[in-house]
Amino acid sequence: MCKACNYTIHGAQHHFGWDNALTPAEWVEPGSTILFHCHDSSAGQLGPSSKLADVTALDFARINPVSGPIFIDGAEPGDALKVTIESFTPQAQNGRGWGWTANIPGFGLLSDQFKDPALIVWDFDPATLEPALWSSQARIPLKPFAGTIGCAPAEAGHHSVVPPRRVGGNLDIRDLAAGTVLYLPVEVGGALFSVGDTHAAQGDGEVCGTAIESPMDVVLTLDLVKGANLKMPRFTTPGPVTRHLDAKGYEVTTGIGPDLMSGARDAVSGMVDHLCATRGISAVEAYMLCSTCGDLRISEIVDMPNWVVSFYFPRAVFE
Amino acid sequence: MCKACNYTIHGAQHHFGWDNALTPAEWVEPGSTILFHCHDSSAGQLGPSSKLADVTALDFARINPVSGPIFIDGAEPGDALKVTIESFTPQAQNGRGWGWTANIPGFGLLSDQFKDPALIVWDFDPATLEPALWSSQARIPLKPFAGTIGCAPAEAGHHSVVPPRRVGGNLDIRDLAAGTVLYLPVEVGGALFSVGDTHAAQGDGEVCGTAIESPMDVVLTLDLVKGANLKMPRFTTPGPVTRHLDAKGYEVTTGIGPDLMSGARDAVSGMVDHLCATRGISAVEAYMLCSTCGDLRISEIVDMPNWVVSFYFPRAVFE
Repeated sequence: MCKACNYTIHGAQHHFGWDNALTPAEWVEPGSTILFHCHDSSAGQLGPSSKLADVTALDFARINPVSGPIFIDGAEPGDALKVTIESFTPQAQNGRGWGWTANIPGFGLLSDQFKDPALIVWDFDPATLEPALWSSQARIPLKPFAGTIGCAPAEAGHHSVVPPRRVGGNLDIRDLAAGTVLYLPVEVGGALFSVGDTHAAQGDGEVCGTAIESPMDVVLTLDLVKGANLKMPRFTTPGPVTRHLDAKGYEVTTGIGPDLMSGARDAVSGMVDHLCATRGISAVEAYMLCSTCGDLRISEIVDMPNWVVSFYFPRAVFE
Repeated sequence: MCKACNYTIHGAQHHFGWDNALTPAEWVEPGSTILFHCHDSSAGQLGPSSKLADVTALDFARINPVSGPIFIDGAEPGDALKVTIESFTPQAQNGRGWGWTANIPGFGLLSDQFKDPALIVWDFDPATLEPALWSSQARIPLKPFAGTIGCAPAEAGHHSVVPPRRVGGNLDIRDLAAGTVLYLPVEVGGALFSVGDTHAAQGDGEVCGTAIESPMDVVLTLDLVKGANLKMPRFTTPGPVTRHLDAKGYEVTTGIGPDLMSGARDAVSGMVDHLCATRGISAVEAYMLCSTCGDLRISEIVDMPNWVVSFYFPRAVFE
């Protein structure tokens, strides 16, 4: 429930993929505040009691549902949709928040190195959002956000939900959290906005391909900036973005060379090796933990011909 | 002066480029603490009173001197050199710290868009390291570090100082600041360590190709980890890395597509446009400010085939 909301979009009002011919779930005036019930990115195929076999059985035609679309009155191509991200409330089961992180074969930055499915199911306090425990060793700081948030593209037809586009979509930007204001290019009349793929935590990169995937209720306010002519999405954060996890500093690995993708792979591989050696965990466990809390940064991109990509793992997780 | 130092390496004891045949400036035992006097990256060609014409006249054969090399007793290929970064002291002129940021034609992430030389000369308090002022509008938070820090490569001959390598070098990693412990692969007997290219501030990416380039005295402790067999440099930070600039949050632009380099260029171009539109500064000024304080991050690298690169500009600079 949302006392200040003008509309509620229920979980049943979802779609898979983007298509500007979809019938809107709701028509709203600019300035409306809307409560969206969002499924997790498995659309309920995984739950708090899921096992490894459920990862293998995932039906990819039902991956990443988004709630919507919303037709915003007066939105036209060339405008920006201003999305004020108000709040996230985990959908509790038996009073507990929950989420999942999986290594899905064929998906992820190091999919060639991690070919077998793997699964972590998370349990957390939905009210306090205290860090989620992994075994007795690690504590993952939580900061909920919407992984998929966007408008319908101008191009007709059905478009996969997996790749993000200039109109947004599966951006998986960790800082699209409560308080952030996001501006999205509008390409079709009414904008046709949808949101979903809520995450309880993720590092920059989402390196294993999944975050802490968790169903949540999301409150957003949708407004218009007429004629903004944005080329790409942009956003403003109201304050610091890493203080939930940076207090004890970072372990950092690097990848150095002429290709940013190879540099990113080397940096993440180096961190997997480092965590295995120092924490006694398995490689796939290290890889999945990295995805939930570690950050890929480009340290330098100008010292020709070699660039430096760094992977920052917050020491607070283990210390 | 450094009371606790075992050795001092003077500014005259520098070299240009890397070559494992260079005669060491000093031979030291593991565990030694050393004071290095480091030139700025122009080797004194630019100074507090430099003008634009001095950028055009730069002699690139004299760019990026490093102080050293240091032969560490017992260092062998396969070891890691453990570098504890103790402190940075700006070399004041007339009681003031100073530095320069330039757009150098042909160099930088957007060199195709910024073809003319440009220069900012900075003045700051060397004792307090309060943020450096740019005109009446911007305040750049300072956090000194060494841009170039590394060992000699195994391959014989002279190697340009510009690209970093697995033995380190021109890493330009903003967080190689006081308190950080850096581990570098050793490829030759004695490691042959050198350091220089000190910066008063830089964002992740160093997008225009220069930071706040500033001569400093650096104190480091050099030790060995035998048989570490590191693939790439790694480091540990003692605490948070962005609290000097993140208090008021960030303006963020994005680049979305199948190539990380194009994504980085789009994100930085977007921020240049945004700063010009909202702050009334010129494009090249915005570009240079971005290089001193804005961060390139990889938000997601798994949602095939499109990745998201984001550029984070700290709002505290203008607010």
